[in-house]
Amino acid sequence: MEEEKKPKSLLVFHNATIVTVDQESRVFSDGAIVVNGDTIEAIGRSTEILHQYSPLAGEVVDLQRRILLPGFVNTHVHTSQQLARGIADDVDLMTWLHERIWPYESSMTEDDSYVSTLLCGVELIRSGVTCFAEAGGQHVSGMAKAVEELGLRACLTQSTMDTGGGLPVNWITRTTEDCIQLQKELYDKHHNTADGRIRVWLGLRQIMNATDALLFKTRDMAKELQTGVHMHVAEIPYENQVVMDTREVNHGTVTYLEKIGILQNNLLAAHSVWVDDAEIGFLSKGGVKVSHCPAAAMRMLGFAPIKEMLNAGICVSLGTDGAPSNNRMSIVDEMYLASLINKGREAYVSGMTNPTALPAETVLKMVTMNGAKSVLWDDEIGSLEVGKKADMVVVNPFLWTMVPLHDCIANLVYCMRTENIESVMCNGRWILKNKKIVNVNEEEVVSLAIRSSSELLKRAGIKIPSKMKFI
Amino acid sequence: MEEEKKPKSLLVFHNATIVTVDQESRVFSDGAIVVNGDTIEAIGRSTEILHQYSPLAGEVVDLQRRILLPGFVNTHVHTSQQLARGIADDVDLMTWLHERIWPYESSMTEDDSYVSTLLCGVELIRSGVTCFAEAGGQHVSGMAKAVEELGLRACLTQSTMDTGGGLPVNWITRTTEDCIQLQKELYDKHHNTADGRIRVWLGLRQIMNATDALLFKTRDMAKELQTGVHMHVAEIPYENQVVMDTREVNHGTVTYLEKIGILQNNLLAAHSVWVDDAEIGFLSKGGVKVSHCPAAAMRMLGFAPIKEMLNAGICVSLGTDGAPSNNRMSIVDEMYLASLINKGREAYVSGMTNPTALPAETVLKMVTMNGAKSVLWDDEIGSLEVGKKADMVVVNPFLWTMVPLHDCIANLVYCMRTENIESVMCNGRWILKNKKIVNVNEEEVVSLAIRSSSELLKRAGIKIPSKMKFI
Repeated sequence: MEEEKKPKSLLVFHNATIVTVDQESRVFSDGAIVVNGDTIEAIGRSTEILHQYSPLAGEVVDLQRRILLPGFVNTHVHTSQQLARGIADDVDLMTWLHERIWPYESSMTEDDSYVSTLLCGVELIRSGVTCFAEAGGQHVSGMAKAVEELGLRACLTQSTMDTGGGLPVNWITRTTEDCIQLQKELYDKHHNTADGRIRVWLGLRQIMNATDALLFKTRDMAKELQTGVHMHVAEIPYENQVVMDTREVNHGTVTYLEKIGILQNNLLAAHSVWVDDAEIGFLSKGGVKVSHCPAAAMRMLGFAPIKEMLNAGICVSLGTDGAPSNNRMSIVDEMYLASLINKGREAYVSGMTNPTALPAETVLKMVTMNGAKSVLWDDEIGSLEVGKKADMVVVNPFLWTMVPLHDCIANLVYCMRTENIESVMCNGRWILKNKKIVNVNEEEVVSLAIRSSSELLKRAGIKIPSKMKFI
Repeated sequence: MEEEKKPKSLLVFHNATIVTVDQESRVFSDGAIVVNGDTIEAIGRSTEILHQYSPLAGEVVDLQRRILLPGFVNTHVHTSQQLARGIADDVDLMTWLHERIWPYESSMTEDDSYVSTLLCGVELIRSGVTCFAEAGGQHVSGMAKAVEELGLRACLTQSTMDTGGGLPVNWITRTTEDCIQLQKELYDKHHNTADGRIRVWLGLRQIMNATDALLFKTRDMAKELQTGVHMHVAEIPYENQVVMDTREVNHGTVTYLEKIGILQNNLLAAHSVWVDDAEIGFLSKGGVKVSHCPAAAMRMLGFAPIKEMLNAGICVSLGTDGAPSNNRMSIVDEMYLASLINKGREAYVSGMTNPTALPAETVLKMVTMNGAKSVLWDDEIGSLEVGKKADMVVVNPFLWTMVPLHDCIANLVYCMRTENIESVMCNGRWILKNKKIVNVNEEEVVSLAIRSSSELLKRAGIKIPSKMKFI
C-alpha cells in the first residue's frame, strides 16, 4: 500500500460524512480525518484539516462523500462454528446440541479452527467488523493464526467446561485445574500479540458446565491478568430452572452469580434473555456488559429485555453468535434485526409494537462505543477521536440499497447491507479495500473451507436429512 | 442478447442444482432446463436434456453448479413509497402517517411514481423478484411505464379510499363512483399489456377508508373483470376496535368482511396480524390469500399467527411492504426474517422459541408457489415446470456468504443474501445478467431518484429532525 513506502505515514481522508460516535455524537457533514501509523491524529472539517495537514501528508484521499464510521465490534461470535453453517437448521435444541454441534466441535482440529476463523473473518470484515469477541471455541491457537493474518482485532477465548452431563468423551476429562492451566498457557502465548491486536480472555461456556471452583478461579485469574471473562448467561428457561433446583436461589443464573460475587465489570454476558427486573438491577450494579444477539435470540432463545437493560444503564452491544445459531454472520444485518425485534417485542409488553423503541442512533452506538466498552477496549477503539486507533469503515451509500439519503443515520441502520461496505481499516491498515479482502486470498479460503468442513462432518459422523426430494 | 439473433430461440441451461418447487418438491442435483421463447419447454437431468436438446439449441449455457430457482414473488410492495425511504423512522404511527406518508404520497406526480417504481424495481430484481403485487399507490400509469421498461411482471393497484378522517385535501373529494371509474379506466388502459406481464388489480386501502358501497362494488367489479383485490387487513388493534365500534361485530375487520361476504378467493389480504381463531377459519374457508410482511410486522404491527394460518390451509406468501415500513426492500431478507420471527414468536405462545417452526422448505414455498397463487398467476409462474413461463433466478452459492453448503435448501433461506443473486430471467428474458441490470441504466435511476425525492420532500413540506449532532 502506498502509505507504507513513505517515511512519514500520514494519511489524510477528506470529503466524507464522518459519524464519530464520540461523547457528543458529532457528525462532520464534510469531514476529514488524519491517520498517523495506527493512530488517529486529527479529525474535523475538511477545509481546516486539509489546510493544516495536506503539506505533511504521504497521501490525501478524496472519499467522494462516502460515510466514515468507527469499525464495528461484534461482541459474541463462535469463529470455530463457521464450518458448521447449515448443519443444524430447523431442529430442536437437543438435536442441535447433541447430534450436531457437540460432535462437530469435539471433532475439530487446530487446522479446522484456523480455516473456520479465516472464513468467518472474511464475513466479519465484509460486514465492517474490525474487532470481535470470540464466544469460546476450540483451539485458540488456530484462531490466533487466522486473526493475525486477516489483520483483525480480537479477544480470543477458549470454550471452558469442567462439569455437565452429555458432553462428548474427549471433553469430560478436563478438571478445573486443567481448564485454568490451559487458559493461562494460551494467555502467555497469545495475549497482546499481532501488534497488540490480539488479547486473550477467559471463557465460561455456561453455568451448567461450570463448578463453583471454576467460577471463582476464573474470576480471580481474570483480575490478576487484567483481562475479561466471556460467558453465556440465562439463555433458556431450562437453564434458570436447573440453577434454581441445584443452587438454592429463587430465580436463575444471574441471581446465583450475584449471590456468589461473580458479577464484575469485566464480565461479558452473552444473550441474557431470561432475566427479571431484579437481575437487570444486579447486572447494572455490577457493571456487567451484555451481548445481545438478535438473530440467535429470535431463532433459539427468546426476546431479551434490551430496552429495559439500556434504561437501567447496562452497556448492551451486538453479536452475531455462531453460524449454526444464525447462519448469516453479518453485524450489519444484526443492526437491522436489533431494531426490528425490539420494536416488535413491545407488542407483548404493551399490546402494540413501538416503532420509536431502539432508534437508529442507539443501535449505531451499540455496535461501536458499547461494543468497545464490552471488550474493555474503549480507551483505544469504538469512536473516531484523536488518539484512538484507526479502526474504521468506509460506506458507499450511493447504491440502490441506500438511496435516497434523507436520514443518513437511519439509513445506516435500516437500509445498509454488506454491499455498501466498501473499505475497512484496522489498526491503521486496510483489511478490505474497494471491496477486496487485502490480507488473505478469499477464493482460496472458500475452497479450503468447503474441503475442511466436508471432511470434518464425515469424521464427526454428522448426517443432515434432505429437506426436499433430491434426484 | 445472443438468443434473439437466432431464428429458433431455444436456450438450454445445464449443470445446475434446480429447485423446482413443483408438487413433489423435486430438486435436480445436476439438472438442466430448456427455455423456448418465454416458456419452459423441458426440465430434467442434465445428461438426458443435453442429449435431446443440444442439437436444437440456439445456445447451451453451463451454469457451473449454480442453483436455479423459480423467480420470487413479492406479494405486498408499495412501489411509489421507494422515494420515501428514511423519511419516517423511529416515529410513532400517527407521525408516520399524518406528517410523513400522507404528505409524501399526496404530493407525488406521475413522474415521481415512475422514478420510484424504477428504483424499487432495481431492488426487487436484485433480490430475485420476477413478479410483484403493488399494494396500492398513486399514479398506476407511472408504475406501468417503469414495470414495462424493467421487464418485470406485476399486478398493479391504485390506492383506493372513499371515506376516512384526516386524509390530505386532494384525496377526500373522491366519491365511491370516482374510485370505481378510475380503476376501470386503469384496467382498460394497462391490463394484460407489456407482453402480458402487467395485470391490473383493484385496491382497497383499508377498512377505515372504505364505505360498504365501495367494498361491494369492488368485489363485484373484480368478479366481472376476473381480476384480484388487494387490501390491507387487520393491521393494528385500533383498526379492529373501530370496526367493532362502528360496524356491529364482536371482533375486527375479518369478522366484518366475512359477515358482508367480501372474503373471496381473489382477495389478497396484506398483514392480517390481529386475527383470532375464528377469523383464521373465515380466511381459510373463503380461500383468501395472506401476504405476510415480516419486517413491517415487527416494526409497526405485531406478530401474525402465520403458523396457525398455514396449518389452517391458508395460502400465505411474503412481502416487503413499502420502504418507510421497512427500508430494506429485499425478499431475500424477508425469507430470513420470516423464519426468525415465526420461530421466535413461539416464545410467547409456548414459553420457548421453536427452532423447528417455519422450516426452510416452507419459507421457500411461500416466496414461490404461494406467491404465485396469491397473485392468481400459478397457472403460469411459481415453479419450474414444463409449460410455465421462464421466470427464474440464478444463485451463485460459492461465495463467503453461503459456504459451506451442507444443506442447500437451508442455506438458500438462512444464508443467501442479495450478493448471491447473479442473474434473473422474467418471461424468457434476462432482467439481471451477471449482476448487471439489463433494461435500465442503474446509475441514472439512482441519480434520478435522489433528485426527484429531494424535490418531492420540499414540495410536501416534510422535515426530518437530525438524529445526531451534525456539524
